[in-house]
Amino acid sequence: DILAAVTAHFQDGPLQGKHILVTSGPTHEPIDPVRYIANRSSGAQGAAIARALHALGARVSFVTGPADVPPPAGVDVVRVETAQQMLDAVRQSLPADAAVFAAAVADWRVACASDSKLKKTSGALPVLTFAENPDILHSISHAKDQRPKLVIGFAAETDDVVENATAKRLRKGCDWIVANDVSPQTGIMGGQENAVTLIDEKGADTWPRMSKDAVSQRLAALIAQRLA
Amino acid sequence: DILAAVTAHFQDGPLQGKHILVTSGPTHEPIDPVRYIANRSSGAQGAAIARALHALGARVSFVTGPADVPPPAGVDVVRVETAQQMLDAVRQSLPADAAVFAAAVADWRVACASDSKLKKTSGALPVLTFAENPDILHSISHAKDQRPKLVIGFAAETDDVVENATAKRLRKGCDWIVANDVSPQTGIMGGQENAVTLIDEKGADTWPRMSKDAVSQRLAALIAQRLA
Repeated sequence: DILAAVTAHFQDGPLQGKHILVTSGPTHEPIDPVRYIANRSSGAQGAAIARALHALGARVSFVTGPADVPPPAGVDVVRVETAQQMLDAVRQSLPADAAVFAAAVADWRVACASDSKLKKTSGALPVLTFAENPDILHSISHAKDQRPKLVIGFAAETDDVVENATAKRLRKGCDWIVANDVSPQTGIMGGQENAVTLIDEKGADTWPRMSKDAVSQRLAALIAQRLA
Repeated sequence: DILAAVTAHFQDGPLQGKHILVTSGPTHEPIDPVRYIANRSSGAQGAAIARALHALGARVSFVTGPADVPPPAGVDVVRVETAQQMLDAVRQSLPADAAVFAAAVADWRVACASDSKLKKTSGALPVLTFAENPDILHSISHAKDQRPKLVIGFAAETDDVVENATAKRLRKGCDWIVANDVSPQTGIMGGQENAVTLIDEKGADTWPRMSKDAVSQRLAALIAQRLA
């Protein structure tokens, strides 16, 4: 819109004129009208990345699941709940110069989600069958049209972080992976800090533990460098 | 503690000197270190009930799952995550003159919760097996020692509200059931209003739709009447 265009014009930054898509937060996959499967993503890292990119002058489309942390000011917010809704919103936000898939998207949804609340009185335990969710990172990394020049995925691991994330980069076809260890004892998921390893075509670069804001500023600077 | 005792002493209300337990919010049942099963309870109704009881002079023990709405001021807060933790905290809060079980406790937990993040790369879809959670309402309603004089359960239904809730009252052995329709189209779960039916030994009394605060004040007044 006009206001955003005017603001961008007066913003002086290396990402001025660039459009960057950021996904953030968890997804919620319904089991029935009251129950759902969630994950511990607070949306803090995604929001911080969107803020850092906006601060460098980018126009940011921010596609977010139900996060604890509010979206930053100045970005275009699209709120979604499920992985399927997130993929739809991502596609509608393209074209973009870069895409940062920071959301913790559920790998699976409940195949047999019920329109009525599952009752305990039947005596039997429920049986949940799962279906694979769309793979947003893989899908956009392999898009024939409108693949962003730079596609960045996240890998939340609890074991063998670098090895798993390096394999994930090749499997997904993205350019970079921001990998981190989300084991409960790290306090990273839901916390203020992050300790990431950036994996690109040249290898793995492990950053010191720092605030999610500092991680975001460093990542945004690298994105600006790559898009320059 | 001393401050609470002094405050209660100077609080003039029909529940002065009474201890009431209130549970609130959802429970989260872990699947693995990052995923969990949740429900759409915001904790708004439970927090409003605790506030209303405190306003009438009661000492309130507030056992809450991870709710969106913060606990009211002036109550003793115990934070829990799972149904099992909630039962433990409830037992530790007894004896009480009355107990209001407003939490939306998960009926089932994942029996095979994993210490490592479930990986998508194995190709297979996960199989989640469930185990029945402890039934807090049934357990406290049938407690040999320390059964509160007045035990109040909640019934969140999507179909046949009065019929299901009346059966639930007998099955659980509680004194009253506060029943409501949580179908998504009502906007009640996560919303500001509630439309409840109070079920006691004499039958069902359907209240008009009103704010969760107004429901709470009406319920607190009835509790005071019963405990007088």
